[in-house]
Amino acid sequence: MVSQELVTMLGKRLPPGRVVTDPEVVAGYARDQAALAPYGTALAVVRPQDTEQVRATVAFCAEHGVPIVPRGAGTGLSGGANALDGCVILSLAAMDAIVQIDAAERLAVVQAGVVNDDLRRACAEHGLWYPPDPASAPWSTIGGNVATNAGGLCCVKYGVTRDYVLGLEAVVGRGEVVRLGRRTAKGVVGYDLCGLMVGSEGTLGIVTEITLRLRGTRPAERTVVGYFDSLTDAGEAVSAVTEAGVVPSALELVDRYCLLAVDEWKRMGLAAEGEVLLLGRTDTPGQAGEDETDTMLRCFERAGATWSTRSTDDAEAEALFAARRLAYPALERLGPVMTEDVCVPRALVPEMLARIERAARDNDVHIANIAHAGDGNLHPLIIAPDDEAVRVRVERAFDQIIDDALALGGTVTGEHGVGLLKRRGLHSELGPAVVAMHEAVKNALDPAGIFNPGKVFGSPTS
Amino acid sequence: MVSQELVTMLGKRLPPGRVVTDPEVVAGYARDQAALAPYGTALAVVRPQDTEQVRATVAFCAEHGVPIVPRGAGTGLSGGANALDGCVILSLAAMDAIVQIDAAERLAVVQAGVVNDDLRRACAEHGLWYPPDPASAPWSTIGGNVATNAGGLCCVKYGVTRDYVLGLEAVVGRGEVVRLGRRTAKGVVGYDLCGLMVGSEGTLGIVTEITLRLRGTRPAERTVVGYFDSLTDAGEAVSAVTEAGVVPSALELVDRYCLLAVDEWKRMGLAAEGEVLLLGRTDTPGQAGEDETDTMLRCFERAGATWSTRSTDDAEAEALFAARRLAYPALERLGPVMTEDVCVPRALVPEMLARIERAARDNDVHIANIAHAGDGNLHPLIIAPDDEAVRVRVERAFDQIIDDALALGGTVTGEHGVGLLKRRGLHSELGPAVVAMHEAVKNALDPAGIFNPGKVFGSPTS
Repeated sequence: MVSQELVTMLGKRLPPGRVVTDPEVVAGYARDQAALAPYGTALAVVRPQDTEQVRATVAFCAEHGVPIVPRGAGTGLSGGANALDGCVILSLAAMDAIVQIDAAERLAVVQAGVVNDDLRRACAEHGLWYPPDPASAPWSTIGGNVATNAGGLCCVKYGVTRDYVLGLEAVVGRGEVVRLGRRTAKGVVGYDLCGLMVGSEGTLGIVTEITLRLRGTRPAERTVVGYFDSLTDAGEAVSAVTEAGVVPSALELVDRYCLLAVDEWKRMGLAAEGEVLLLGRTDTPGQAGEDETDTMLRCFERAGATWSTRSTDDAEAEALFAARRLAYPALERLGPVMTEDVCVPRALVPEMLARIERAARDNDVHIANIAHAGDGNLHPLIIAPDDEAVRVRVERAFDQIIDDALALGGTVTGEHGVGLLKRRGLHSELGPAVVAMHEAVKNALDPAGIFNPGKVFGSPTS
Repeated sequence: MVSQELVTMLGKRLPPGRVVTDPEVVAGYARDQAALAPYGTALAVVRPQDTEQVRATVAFCAEHGVPIVPRGAGTGLSGGANALDGCVILSLAAMDAIVQIDAAERLAVVQAGVVNDDLRRACAEHGLWYPPDPASAPWSTIGGNVATNAGGLCCVKYGVTRDYVLGLEAVVGRGEVVRLGRRTAKGVVGYDLCGLMVGSEGTLGIVTEITLRLRGTRPAERTVVGYFDSLTDAGEAVSAVTEAGVVPSALELVDRYCLLAVDEWKRMGLAAEGEVLLLGRTDTPGQAGEDETDTMLRCFERAGATWSTRSTDDAEAEALFAARRLAYPALERLGPVMTEDVCVPRALVPEMLARIERAARDNDVHIANIAHAGDGNLHPLIIAPDDEAVRVRVERAFDQIIDDALALGGTVTGEHGVGLLKRRGLHSELGPAVVAMHEAVKNALDPAGIFNPGKVFGSPTS
């Protein structure tokens, strides 16, 4: 069937205006924020307003073998939401209702398109807190966070998105609407299919509604700031904090290159102070929190901080963390950012940072770094060069970093997801037997083969 | 092939002594602690000492279509480890090595047969804590805990087994040895097959080794004790604690019938004080913990406690919690215990307790209660009567309780697992579309159909 006919037929199954074919609009949905990831041309963008419209779309696509690429805000960094030729882009952005916040049960029910920060604000009004805080929180949706099992700054103490997903509604298979998981605090009936959907990057179905576990309001945080002469010194401080038994509520690393990018944008003067900034926080209340702050400061000093202090000014501490969150968009102002997302055991952070420096030297490129250092999740990154020869060297350096992370017992993606860019890494990390298990599960739950096909564990050359 | 030949052939693939066929020994492995669950006659018990022996057993069974029933300590309460006719019972009990405790990374690597309390003791020596604490902790194995996603007393604040399983080694399919999950703090490469294995009750493969996340030593706990005239009064206290925003580190309910059973065994005089005992704890340090204790006490008093107090005597508080843990074995001394395991939203605990009382009245039976009340996980239970007519009434009462739990948005099993006894409940709770997803996953990952077949979502009449 020619594609125009298909789109017309799909349009008849949905209310007017839900299927968009204007080529310019469709092109605007063609890719996420992963620089250099390939993308194709979609047939159409579908913007459902409710689960029934998602169901109708999935049923139609299953009937006609049309691939579906689900999409939240498109802030992903691995090409997971990139269009495939002849696909339907299913944008959940219009399904943005906060259905319920239940203070007594400490849970929220939200549609997939709710923006992370909007949910966090709504929870705060009830004295509740939804912890997962990816740097994209002002824009990214809970549905997208669920698809990638998003992390963030507070994960080092409070875990990632999967730890907060109690249940969900999804459209699966050939258009069945199912509820997975639960609303109760505990429950062990059957397989954890809810947890399986989290982080499956749209390859197993379309998540339409999510039931999230919440926490009570976070206690006030104390902040420790340190500047270091080198990445490895800062890495030693991170390792020392872990060994001292402190679980910080955040432990973030930003290097001079990233600080300069923020300075250039926001005029904060951050880069004047040193090469590498380390920001530690604790939200443990009372004397125990005081003690943890002292311990962190001592760890910073002993690891060779050129300057370190307890921040006594909340506004200043907030500004530093705001700068950390702005590092990625600040770099994006300078050009498409190529980023890695390796995660290594915490004690090996200094070793991994040293290996990143070596990979840069070996391939004669400059690699910048931001990191959720406290959980070993490092983001070496670079502004994609125009020069093709330089780009080849960058890619070689990044391949070396991936190999090093795996050699240290790490993973190729700590929080960004596999999408298109990390497929080769996935195969190296998991090996053929585990990939075969993935394929078996994918084939079992996606019999029509329509959900984001080729992403995650598809062949990297496809 | 006749079964004797099969067993002889299997014996040749394993070191001497690993395959046990002595009928008395085999009979001793025929069932777990689920009263009245059916069980069959196994061909043999295999007691592997390492992963290679598990692999050889699985490969053999896949070749010859022999069902495998994995087994830890056999303390399960739903028949999950019960023998099937012609099966091999695979006892992991001899694989009981604590492979590693890594204090810097806060993780432990253990073989499946390690006993929960043994691991907890070993962790304590490193200043670390493995939270999941099912009442069976002195006997049950980590492998069994993983198979059922075991809960316990501290789950109300610290989560269940799945929350602590970072990675695992398993023998899957037709004898492939795979590693799932990771050792790093974060990681999103591929599907969460590790989490899928947790709680799968041996239907997707044999877990041989587990990598567990640990916490630092738990702070000292404060205890609040209350006696109430009725279950519903105690339920109101539970609900009030939740509404007050307190997350207790334990909130346990034990009724007079269970207290009497403990008294009869241990002569503690617990039942003299009142009808229902509620035990609340907090481990929040400092003034915040003081405040939580005060709030809990106030909630107890306002809900009509006939007597309540902050325990100032640690030994006394420990004795009360020990009594709580002993309630189940104390009842088992009186006869086979039939127990339910429903979990409802926290705010509905009083309503659910009232419905349990109604189910008892409606069917003219006496139902006793213990409960992890703080997370809505209730264990109505009864000593199985000899009288067939009474037993029919008990079963009718329990069916009514299951229906009530589902009507209140609850689940048929909070922590015991489905095994054989909760299969009908699973079908009611999940519905056909979600059961079909289970079957698809099961068939995909167990192509030979050998892993604990018929358990969990098999037909309740099979």
